[in-house]
Amino acid sequence: MSTRWADIDVYGHMNNARYFELIDTVVNNHLLTATGTDIRRLPAIGVVAEVGCRFFAEVGYPRPVDLGLVVDRVGRSSVVYRVGLFQGGDEAVAEGRFVHVYVDNTDPERPVVPLPAEIRAAVTPLVR
Amino acid sequence: MSTRWADIDVYGHMNNARYFELIDTVVNNHLLTATGTDIRRLPAIGVVAEVGCRFFAEVGYPRPVDLGLVVDRVGRSSVVYRVGLFQGGDEAVAEGRFVHVYVDNTDPERPVVPLPAEIRAAVTPLVR
Amino acid sequence: MSTRWADIDVYGHMNNARYFELIDTVVNNHLLTATGTDIRRLPAIGVVAEVGCRFFAEVGYPRPVDLGLVVDRVGRSSVVYRVGLFQGGDEAVAEGRFVHVYVDNTDPERPVVPLPAEIRAAVTPLVR
Amino acid sequence: MSTRWADIDVYGHMNNARYFELIDTVVNNHLLTATGTDIRRLPAIGVVAEVGCRFFAEVGYPRPVDLGLVVDRVGRSSVVYRVGLFQGGDEAVAEGRFVHVYVDNTDPERPVVPLPAEIRAAVTPLVR
Repeated sequence: MSTRWADIDVYGHMNNARYFELIDTVVNNHLLTATGTDIRRLPAIGVVAEVGCRFFAEVGYPRPVDLGLVVDRVGRSSVVYRVGLFQGGDEAVAEGRFVHVYVDNTDPERPVVPLPAEIRAAVTPLVR
Repeated sequence: MSTRWADIDVYGHMNNARYFELIDTVVNNHLLTATGTDIRRLPAIGVVAEVGCRFFAEVGYPRPVDLGLVVDRVGRSSVVYRVGLFQGGDEAVAEGRFVHVYVDNTDPERPVVPLPAEIRAAVTPLVR
Repeated sequence: MSTRWADIDVYGHMNNARYFELIDTVVNNHLLTATGTDIRRLPAIGVVAEVGCRFFAEVGYPRPVDLGLVVDRVGRSSVVYRVGLFQGGDEAVAEGRFVHVYVDNTDPERPVVPLPAEIRAAVTPLVR
Repeated sequence: MSTRWADIDVYGHMNNARYFELIDTVVNNHLLTATGTDIRRLPAIGVVAEVGCRFFAEVGYPRPVDLGLVVDRVGRSSVVYRVGLFQGGDEAVAEGRFVHVYVDNTDPERPVVPLPAEIRAAVTPLVR
């Protein structure tokens, strides 16, 4: 993914919040591609329950960032992803954790629901 | 802190990355106020080594967000903060974790350095 | 409105894109307050057709930004807003222009529609 | 350039502020490549004096955006860029305007200075 001038803060490296824009995107890119469906229109949607990131080295602009995605756990209603961020080397510059919980988007209360079959099929091959 | 239209994603709630813009800001607001110094100009700066957030309820626009800040740990070179986000109630809608490690900003390699005295003085009163 | 650490770019001032997050928000804040309605749920929504901003002085973090909103023109289907941004003085640090065109959000093609009556009522008092 | 999940607002299209992150980036990408220099470290830096964008069609995620860059005017101290944004077609979905004014970054007052020779050489070939 391309980096942007605005990703960089006063210290000259990517601001911590911006990493989550990349992490969020790699997860959704995979779901969109693997399901072949606009997942935003499904009755059950994944909402983010927990995220985290550890930063090992500085990420800069203008170099692009490569992202690797694996699945740590597939639950009844949730998926736990792990994301590696790379910028021109074999060692990750950051490692993210991202937890989706599926909820019923047709109900304003958004109660938790079981993982939709197409999501389960999309994430299972990424379990390591 | 005020929320912004652009904080909200296609699901109508605050995007997970944007929470970290608020968490980042409450930490730096405290350091700026408590030290009375523009911490960005100090020889030793805090770079973010790890962050995380758990989301308990949806945060919306246009209501503002209240943030509470405590310190979980003051190390030799690092500070671990915990941030509660509230939107119109006594229960946190999200809880963030934010770890600063201090580095020498006058050296391009940015080696880790001991916590500056003014930072230690600013964060110690927040230890719970 | 509060400013955020992540608003500031490598040159130490607010990145140009971030001004539009504030401009966008002041327009929508007014519409939400003046109509007393969640305008995002109306059948006709305002989509942005054109924006612009001239920057007269640097905007910094952590000081908040005051915004002033006037309406330059109310058309059949559009509203042209002008926004002044202030940071601790009587002279604007930036001036924004923001054009909303109303479209039918119940039609996937989003054809242009006349300005809804509640929006017209909300913006007319701001015409200078 | 890749688009991001967080670019998309509640109406399902790219938020107006985010276009300026792409516009900003294409200008700086060109300057970095054409000068072969990290322009952020030069004594004279380009600060944004004015920007604008007209939106002709909706830009979505996850498709990437192609950007075209031309120069409308090279002044004594300023450069006026024009940017076309495309998403899978020959017609621009948006057209941006971006004005850089060069200032002395070694002086805290940042007075306006003549365009540096390497910047002039980098932008002149883009004049249409």
